[in-house]
Amino acid sequence: MTPESLPVTLADVRAAAERLRGIANRTPVLTSRTFNARTGHQVFFKCENFQRGGAFKFRGAYNRLAQLSADEKRRGVVAFSSGNHAQGTALAAQLLNIPATIVMPDDAPRVKLDATRGYGAEVIVYDRLTGNREAIARQLVQERGATLVPPFNDPHIIAGQGTAALELLEEIPDLDAIIAPVGGGGLIAGCAIAARALRPQIQIFGVEAIGADDAKQSLQRGAIVHIEPPTTIADGIRTQAIGTLTFPILRALLNDVVIVSDDEILDAVRFALTRMKIVVEPTGAVPIAAVMQNRIPANLARIGIIVSGGNISGELIRSVVG
Amino acid sequence: MTPESLPVTLADVRAAAERLRGIANRTPVLTSRTFNARTGHQVFFKCENFQRGGAFKFRGAYNRLAQLSADEKRRGVVAFSSGNHAQGTALAAQLLNIPATIVMPDDAPRVKLDATRGYGAEVIVYDRLTGNREAIARQLVQERGATLVPPFNDPHIIAGQGTAALELLEEIPDLDAIIAPVGGGGLIAGCAIAARALRPQIQIFGVEAIGADDAKQSLQRGAIVHIEPPTTIADGIRTQAIGTLTFPILRALLNDVVIVSDDEILDAVRFALTRMKIVVEPTGAVPIAAVMQNRIPANLARIGIIVSGGNISGELIRSVVG
Repeated sequence: MTPESLPVTLADVRAAAERLRGIANRTPVLTSRTFNARTGHQVFFKCENFQRGGAFKFRGAYNRLAQLSADEKRRGVVAFSSGNHAQGTALAAQLLNIPATIVMPDDAPRVKLDATRGYGAEVIVYDRLTGNREAIARQLVQERGATLVPPFNDPHIIAGQGTAALELLEEIPDLDAIIAPVGGGGLIAGCAIAARALRPQIQIFGVEAIGADDAKQSLQRGAIVHIEPPTTIADGIRTQAIGTLTFPILRALLNDVVIVSDDEILDAVRFALTRMKIVVEPTGAVPIAAVMQNRIPANLARIGIIVSGGNISGELIRSVVG
Repeated sequence: MTPESLPVTLADVRAAAERLRGIANRTPVLTSRTFNARTGHQVFFKCENFQRGGAFKFRGAYNRLAQLSADEKRRGVVAFSSGNHAQGTALAAQLLNIPATIVMPDDAPRVKLDATRGYGAEVIVYDRLTGNREAIARQLVQERGATLVPPFNDPHIIAGQGTAALELLEEIPDLDAIIAPVGGGGLIAGCAIAARALRPQIQIFGVEAIGADDAKQSLQRGAIVHIEPPTTIADGIRTQAIGTLTFPILRALLNDVVIVSDDEILDAVRFALTRMKIVVEPTGAVPIAAVMQNRIPANLARIGIIVSGGNISGELIRSVVG
């Protein structure tokens, strides 16, 4: 599949960037001499942990919601998520005056439930063992005529996430590679589209955790592989299958998917916290771990890492610095 | 005293900036919509917690050491510090191939002892109760002909620290005020000189902790006041008296010194960590606390805060997120 035939284009990412201008944070790009000395690469950290809502998710959600019709906006949106997609959607809806209902498991961290409610969303909790969150969300969509906001398998979501790479390459144009975590594939798909269009020779690497390697398996098999529910500490990439829209993009544009362990992820969280002085959640540390463990080809000198988010529990911070 | 008659000028700060170019980090300036909404100010955080060595101290130390003669460099430098001045001096010495001896208390945090040794410095520990660190340092100076690097009372140190404000105003020229912590006064003196010269109408506020308000007392009294050893959690500003060089600068250029409590400082550390996703040490959080507690006049809309450092113990991080 050629980039031209993919469902999202650089023009879509540029249009998303226009919608997000002055609304999303243009997050800073940090560097660490210590990290460079240790890994042998020159690394540029695109800090989406400083994004509104604490993660890149706001980019895609806002880009999706901003394009709803007036009637659709009035009828509201629904999303199901225990994580950053909940907060990103709730915040985007609040800014656009759209009623939002977020379906979350009743054992979601208190801080995430509170944050989502804090953005003005109605939160409906369900029992993770007995409930079916998708059925609950679908019922809301039918009853209220609300629009379901998918977490990744949507061209506007993908285009919105791609603005992270667009900004990174505007600031550091001569990157040899971009690395990002792979959950459902929305972030890396959008970033790959933007980056490859702007810089055809750039290499794109996805990173997954052990036991959450559905994208790697899918690319090897040539078809979307569904896996058992992953248990990795990187809660943002516990997806069981990548999307029907993201899969062909990953297939066309990714150079490789590499794998890291939970211990390696925690080492990366610790490095970011203690040496770089930034708070990164495990999912955001996944690509950092890949570089720290020399899983990226050594000949790629200048590497951009999408640090996807910073929403980490106090408990996990305590364990990392303990 | 007029700015023209002060012992450090904008030209000195600019010369320091030239020496530091490509060597010190040009630290990013962050913003937080949440912080702005909460405080009513528009605040720009100059993140010296991302500086080499984890604090602004590297700026002054490098500017001082770079100006030693070849002979002085050969004979080495000595500093006494349990904190960021130790690491800043050790790192600057390492980069300039100058032998460095740092005198530190034997109960200094292991991580700081290790970091200082990691920069190649010889660390001499002394018993805090029975030893006299200044006498030890002086003896080294006499025996070896080494140069003592003072933590703040030196025009080159002051000029180096002022480069933080120079960079901040290059990026955000239209600030109404700059706020920084006051220990010995080196940071705020350098910043005040640069800022007032670049923008005469700018207001400068120092911040001290309860029980560490020697600068405030000194400015009120019109003479340097020595206080009992402070016990504030903000270990970077536990100085008992400001310097003979910094005092006249503070007297000429500061609009006010405001005071915060340890609880307010910890609240600011917590806000930075959990909402802004950055690691700030208590001293770096002191000016953040001042704004959070509305101790800065409300009519000053655009405020630059010098976040002085990020070297915080794991124990303190744990207590803040607990």
